[in-house]
Amino acid sequence: MNFIEKRLDELNRYRPDPTAPGDLDAFWERTLRASAAKPPQGTRTQTASLSPYMTVYRVEYEGYDETPIRGWYVLPAFAGERDLPCIVLFHGYSGSKGYPEQYADLLLMGYAVFAIDVRGQGGETGNLLPQSFGMTKGWISQGLLDPETSYYKAITVDAVRALEWAAQQPEIDPARIVAAGASQGGGLALISSALSGIPCKTVADIPNMCHMDYGILNSTGSLTEAAAFVSMHPDKLEQVLQTLSYFDMLNLCCRLSRPVFVSLGLKDTVCLPETIFAVYNRIAAPKELQVYPFNGHYTSGDHLRRVMQFLNG
Amino acid sequence: MNFIEKRLDELNRYRPDPTAPGDLDAFWERTLRASAAKPPQGTRTQTASLSPYMTVYRVEYEGYDETPIRGWYVLPAFAGERDLPCIVLFHGYSGSKGYPEQYADLLLMGYAVFAIDVRGQGGETGNLLPQSFGMTKGWISQGLLDPETSYYKAITVDAVRALEWAAQQPEIDPARIVAAGASQGGGLALISSALSGIPCKTVADIPNMCHMDYGILNSTGSLTEAAAFVSMHPDKLEQVLQTLSYFDMLNLCCRLSRPVFVSLGLKDTVCLPETIFAVYNRIAAPKELQVYPFNGHYTSGDHLRRVMQFLNG
Amino acid sequence: MNFIEKRLDELNRYRPDPTAPGDLDAFWERTLRASAAKPPQGTRTQTASLSPYMTVYRVEYEGYDETPIRGWYVLPAFAGERDLPCIVLFHGYSGSKGYPEQYADLLLMGYAVFAIDVRGQGGETGNLLPQSFGMTKGWISQGLLDPETSYYKAITVDAVRALEWAAQQPEIDPARIVAAGASQGGGLALISSALSGIPCKTVADIPNMCHMDYGILNSTGSLTEAAAFVSMHPDKLEQVLQTLSYFDMLNLCCRLSRPVFVSLGLKDTVCLPETIFAVYNRIAAPKELQVYPFNGHYTSGDHLRRVMQFLNG
Amino acid sequence: MNFIEKRLDELNRYRPDPTAPGDLDAFWERTLRASAAKPPQGTRTQTASLSPYMTVYRVEYEGYDETPIRGWYVLPAFAGERDLPCIVLFHGYSGSKGYPEQYADLLLMGYAVFAIDVRGQGGETGNLLPQSFGMTKGWISQGLLDPETSYYKAITVDAVRALEWAAQQPEIDPARIVAAGASQGGGLALISSALSGIPCKTVADIPNMCHMDYGILNSTGSLTEAAAFVSMHPDKLEQVLQTLSYFDMLNLCCRLSRPVFVSLGLKDTVCLPETIFAVYNRIAAPKELQVYPFNGHYTSGDHLRRVMQFLNG
Amino acid sequence: MNFIEKRLDELNRYRPDPTAPGDLDAFWERTLRASAAKPPQGTRTQTASLSPYMTVYRVEYEGYDETPIRGWYVLPAFAGERDLPCIVLFHGYSGSKGYPEQYADLLLMGYAVFAIDVRGQGGETGNLLPQSFGMTKGWISQGLLDPETSYYKAITVDAVRALEWAAQQPEIDPARIVAAGASQGGGLALISSALSGIPCKTVADIPNMCHMDYGILNSTGSLTEAAAFVSMHPDKLEQVLQTLSYFDMLNLCCRLSRPVFVSLGLKDTVCLPETIFAVYNRIAAPKELQVYPFNGHYTSGDHLRRVMQFLNG
Amino acid sequence: MNFIEKRLDELNRYRPDPTAPGDLDAFWERTLRASAAKPPQGTRTQTASLSPYMTVYRVEYEGYDETPIRGWYVLPAFAGERDLPCIVLFHGYSGSKGYPEQYADLLLMGYAVFAIDVRGQGGETGNLLPQSFGMTKGWISQGLLDPETSYYKAITVDAVRALEWAAQQPEIDPARIVAAGASQGGGLALISSALSGIPCKTVADIPNMCHMDYGILNSTGSLTEAAAFVSMHPDKLEQVLQTLSYFDMLNLCCRLSRPVFVSLGLKDTVCLPETIFAVYNRIAAPKELQVYPFNGHYTSGDHLRRVMQFLNG
Repeated sequence: MNFIEKRLDELNRYRPDPTAPGDLDAFWERTLRASAAKPPQGTRTQTASLSPYMTVYRVEYEGYDETPIRGWYVLPAFAGERDLPCIVLFHGYSGSKGYPEQYADLLLMGYAVFAIDVRGQGGETGNLLPQSFGMTKGWISQGLLDPETSYYKAITVDAVRALEWAAQQPEIDPARIVAAGASQGGGLALISSALSGIPCKTVADIPNMCHMDYGILNSTGSLTEAAAFVSMHPDKLEQVLQTLSYFDMLNLCCRLSRPVFVSLGLKDTVCLPETIFAVYNRIAAPKELQVYPFNGHYTSGDHLRRVMQFLNG
Repeated sequence: MNFIEKRLDELNRYRPDPTAPGDLDAFWERTLRASAAKPPQGTRTQTASLSPYMTVYRVEYEGYDETPIRGWYVLPAFAGERDLPCIVLFHGYSGSKGYPEQYADLLLMGYAVFAIDVRGQGGETGNLLPQSFGMTKGWISQGLLDPETSYYKAITVDAVRALEWAAQQPEIDPARIVAAGASQGGGLALISSALSGIPCKTVADIPNMCHMDYGILNSTGSLTEAAAFVSMHPDKLEQVLQTLSYFDMLNLCCRLSRPVFVSLGLKDTVCLPETIFAVYNRIAAPKELQVYPFNGHYTSGDHLRRVMQFLNG
Repeated sequence: MNFIEKRLDELNRYRPDPTAPGDLDAFWERTLRASAAKPPQGTRTQTASLSPYMTVYRVEYEGYDETPIRGWYVLPAFAGERDLPCIVLFHGYSGSKGYPEQYADLLLMGYAVFAIDVRGQGGETGNLLPQSFGMTKGWISQGLLDPETSYYKAITVDAVRALEWAAQQPEIDPARIVAAGASQGGGLALISSALSGIPCKTVADIPNMCHMDYGILNSTGSLTEAAAFVSMHPDKLEQVLQTLSYFDMLNLCCRLSRPVFVSLGLKDTVCLPETIFAVYNRIAAPKELQVYPFNGHYTSGDHLRRVMQFLNG
Repeated sequence: MNFIEKRLDELNRYRPDPTAPGDLDAFWERTLRASAAKPPQGTRTQTASLSPYMTVYRVEYEGYDETPIRGWYVLPAFAGERDLPCIVLFHGYSGSKGYPEQYADLLLMGYAVFAIDVRGQGGETGNLLPQSFGMTKGWISQGLLDPETSYYKAITVDAVRALEWAAQQPEIDPARIVAAGASQGGGLALISSALSGIPCKTVADIPNMCHMDYGILNSTGSLTEAAAFVSMHPDKLEQVLQTLSYFDMLNLCCRLSRPVFVSLGLKDTVCLPETIFAVYNRIAAPKELQVYPFNGHYTSGDHLRRVMQFLNG
Repeated sequence: MNFIEKRLDELNRYRPDPTAPGDLDAFWERTLRASAAKPPQGTRTQTASLSPYMTVYRVEYEGYDETPIRGWYVLPAFAGERDLPCIVLFHGYSGSKGYPEQYADLLLMGYAVFAIDVRGQGGETGNLLPQSFGMTKGWISQGLLDPETSYYKAITVDAVRALEWAAQQPEIDPARIVAAGASQGGGLALISSALSGIPCKTVADIPNMCHMDYGILNSTGSLTEAAAFVSMHPDKLEQVLQTLSYFDMLNLCCRLSRPVFVSLGLKDTVCLPETIFAVYNRIAAPKELQVYPFNGHYTSGDHLRRVMQFLNG
Repeated sequence: MNFIEKRLDELNRYRPDPTAPGDLDAFWERTLRASAAKPPQGTRTQTASLSPYMTVYRVEYEGYDETPIRGWYVLPAFAGERDLPCIVLFHGYSGSKGYPEQYADLLLMGYAVFAIDVRGQGGETGNLLPQSFGMTKGWISQGLLDPETSYYKAITVDAVRALEWAAQQPEIDPARIVAAGASQGGGLALISSALSGIPCKTVADIPNMCHMDYGILNSTGSLTEAAAFVSMHPDKLEQVLQTLSYFDMLNLCCRLSRPVFVSLGLKDTVCLPETIFAVYNRIAAPKELQVYPFNGHYTSGDHLRRVMQFLNG
């Protein structure tokens, strides 16, 4: 074995203890039930498109709370108006839904796209989740003392509801909805797939929300905000680890039943290979892993082709 | 003149154009009137102190909106119970009110201290100001498209109300209240002094909220969040600059009438000397400037002695 | 004027001396004549596309020398097969032509795209230009002692020939060819437009190859390679500056006659605002400038919409 | 076990070999005897205090050699004049005794404070230890070729003598003297406690001088100066390691017999957790450890309360 | 054992699997035979020397292909004209043969020096090896898809031919030729010694080209270019690792039969200690290792004396 | 003018005010008289040389105080034993006299070399100058409150005495002594030449000790230690600037009367071009300037040849 093979071999065998709290299932059952009881209140408004070949709707739907979550719902005008497959896309940390044209590559593949803002981050979507305690810079320390008040809970339910909104659109074939994203978006794709019956497939590129007890100590990404929060409030370590455990794919990946595509970079210091392998190694559903041995927190090369082969395969 | 004198000479003569919007006075009159109409709803609860020589109260008062602003009200038990001078302290960006013991130096000088959390930042105080649009990492881009919804407005009114709360305490001599802080805290000390008749003196160490049109282009501090916001939404440049202008001491320093102490570092890239000199040069009230030629964003040496000489002088 | 306006005002008035060598016109006449005398030897081979809506050809044509330059020629299958407008795209330094899907946004706008590798860089295209002297890391110091042997000359002629190849394709309306790119690609778009009659419009985002005597001293981008080369061979300063002057848009921008769109970031340390303004201020053709005051070496926001308004305007 | 628990478990079991030289005890017996034979020559001069509640003396006493070591001896004027407990404080590397007000928090707790300059560093105290060989930047490579001439020896004896000076003051209860400090100050608190019978308790925050054979290879702190010294004089490796071993708490911690409080950060690259655990694990005296899992080289949160609970407990 | 001894002990026992391809010997036999069949075409031209005590020749000889490799052949004028020992020197990555005076120390030791440019890098030597595919910044990704076209092959043969050229000079005792260099130069000294019968001794300071499967994942040096190449072309991982394996001293060190001197720094992130130990541990020839425990990618102290003791020993 | 010419033009006209204190001449007269009154007490001991062509003596002489200053006195054995020209060499900050072989290039040019340690820095030379106040890391803040106690004074006199020692050696032609060095060594070459009649020429590469009032505010080199010292003791600014002014070549360059060679890099942030031009522009003696437009704090290319042309010219 050369050294890269050795490293992979070691990672393939990495199986840290899950950290699931006793009431994990109850928490999610309760949470999903509450969400189901709340009407989506979605609106879609066609908007001027830069191109006649692309039909663009501004969407607003009610997320976890009253926050209107904004998204782009974009259709390939040349691909018919019914039974379209649809990719529901979640962006990376601090990013946004961007502009409809960004999804042109997926439209060209014949997919409709529903790309939402993650609440409060760089897009046009606010965040009405009450903040009742201090925070560190960023978003994830909001409500971090309790899973019930946690920002993670809100964005997870927002993501599940995005899938639901997409499944209700007349142009979409609800059996061909894909949850997808990279980094934070990969984490949301995984967790929403674990919690919703809707996605037929999941694409999680360099995903976060995996093995977060490892990440909070070692990652240079968003979990540094949780670490900084504990550093400011050292007595709250247990509470914070407890909250994270409700959203850690290490504890939820057993719920995945449909095919999952995962990618990672061995030099990624944000979503570290240990964290993603820890989850990937436990997935029982059909799964595919793309390792980039020399990549940091990015995919590269003909990655879209690999994703498409997974989606079309 | 040696080179340092030359640099100072140049800064002493720096007088950029104010950027005051036409309705600046109306905005603040309206804002302060609304605040005045709202009862403070303050509560103080004595709490276990680490020391018999220090009397500690946890305080909550209602800030700009319903957010309960938390603070420490700390009294020097050895200095009598009436007619105490009081320093109202605002912390630096992302910090917190910390712990009562931190103010032991001021207590020892015979001052009572009222140290508040700036809302939403690293303390125990949340932030109920609605967030209805996206943000960049940090706090200052909240509501940045309109002075009426701006985070700056909320924290400014919170600060003014902190002065008011202090002035109502039975132990305090309302004629001897000082507004003080460093960096963000210095900015809040300045702006609350400009808007409130309460402080008899103001201590603004390395203050922000000065000449923000310069800072947004050149600072490495919190204004980079506003710059990043504009970078994400380039069409909103004018709106953002407009909002900032309502909170820029360049436009408000003419309202200062009581003695002001200001400090700065010539190598400060966060609160750049140009920004502080631009404001200092326009202050008509009695004023004192402490320049640290080789300091970045910090004061040093026997700085507290200089502050005390100003306060006791 | 606020500080940003002051900075822009200063840049709008920046007019450094051109550095044109006496035989500049002769050099380019000779060079273009030689290129014209050489048949393009282009081949296009249809290749499997990820999408039925996108027709993809692998292209090879002979560049400045015998080097086969590789490119993607991509057509929007839904937009007809004749009289298409075409964007000839040049990538940034060290990059590549990438993958056809990357151009989906432009295809969706109804444009054909011809995206080439810049020779020797990160794509699949080699570089047969003889290297007869040492080099610093990177590409631009190849042949830098003489404009006749310079890498810049080779890539400029490669770019002009890409425009020519595009103009000969049966699907393309030769009157609607656009030269476009960012950074190095923006420089190539500008210089190839200055030297070729083909492009009807030019899009130069954050372009290099502008005011290179300034850039070699101040840029953190590819010109640091030329600076390092001179540092190793200090006696060759004049030769290097001389070579650069043949490719500096400061000396060639007077040749632009069709509409030009230029963008820049005021915080860009790679393609510094001084360098781009120096050229932009001298352009006599119809022109449009998009300034991002807080951006480094990138465009942001709804930039594609601005480009499309320019192209469709 | 979650990952943090795993990491702690591993550190709790870390027991590297001691590196004690054969004559370690003889060295210290000789050294302490020589110090005991030398009169302290201490002087205290009351000086203007910023506050009537704080009595301040400038102190000078003769350290290891003739160097007058300067310190602040500060008394809480409100806490009586006899039988005060006293904290002898040692500062961090390159720091100083600072200003008396800095110790206001400890005064308020009813402690007298004796804070000294570590010789030659950032305070007002010089260093008359002869330097007879070259050095790297900083202080610790002075005399590093021999324990007898080492800077470490001088500052250790200076620290022991500071304890002795404090014990002789009329206001102080000699049975209630605490040795305390952070980083270098933590190291000095430990080593002076190991060598002196005076301190009743020891507070060593993020201490250095622990497991220095590990630190010289891995630390980013002051031991890099020893590493740089060896790098310049590679033949002196053994000598340097030998010298360090006389001052390494790994070899001296067995001498601690009174309660010890230690803190550390798992992300500390200056005083690495391995080095502190190696020592802590070997301490036989009553001991308490405060781990900050996400801190670098700093303590945080309500740390003073924890220290006070240890001191008052 | 102290910690440094432990680290060395671990490295002394490090024996990763070789990665030799099946046709390694055939490849080199074929390659060396082809080189042997090609006349050296060397020329030497005496050139003005800065000193009468130093005789300087500019040398050109034909390398692996037609590229004229340039070098300095420098003789100590005071040491006789016959039977001189000669050091053939290879420089570090991106460097050059420099100037004759640089070798004054070796001349003073009585050695003739032949210092060549590594092709294409920072000297005066070009590179005519055809580049038929894209590259990342730097040199080593040229032809990296196939050992036959690889830059490594060209520079290795260039190095072997340098030894041959030196052996033919009338002033030189062909039995006393040394191959030497640092970093890349150390790698070339090793590989040329492994492939040529000429050197009587080899000096490889902090050498690269060792255990490259480890280096490509972990080094911060030139192998990052190979890593970046794979990152751009992820499907070419196997090909790249395959190519590297032909030039990896891990696979070739068994061919060394004459005394070898190797040095390394334990903190070297460019040529990591693991990579050099992996090779050193497998060398069967007489060998000597100089470890600098606190050095990064450099030797230090009286290193030349150690080298001279090896050469004269 | 191109931009580089513009920059040079500006620097050629830079003439800041001198900062000479009123008693500058008296200070130096007194200082030099005291030195002259003190016998050099030099010893030279021949030591084993790595080469028969190089005669090596270890030298010790008494510097400014009793500190034995150590140096290498190295002779080219092949160049005769009488009337040799001699280069007295001063090393850069934190460096050392190194090893005799390092000077092989100068020996080969026929020069004897006398290379001394700057006291207390990285060589084998200690420093007995009493340190009676605190310091920042490094050397230059020693005694910085008074020119009489300043480290600068000690090293300057040490340097002058090195010239004197060299002039007394039997092998040396006292009319052909050169003072030379780079960075700190360039500063010492300049100041010792200004204060001593001995050197016939001076080579000051990228020298420090120039226009120090500018450097203390802007340099990233050793003057940051003085800046840090003032930052710790802000009330001592005037004293520190005063002390520096006694050693600033801006005030002493008028004393230079023999030919001076100076070099600088326009990108040097340690010894900034403004500081060197300020001095160079005021030198009335024959002078030569070598500008490296793209160099930081280093010379490059065939620099030795330029120096030799100056020395031999």
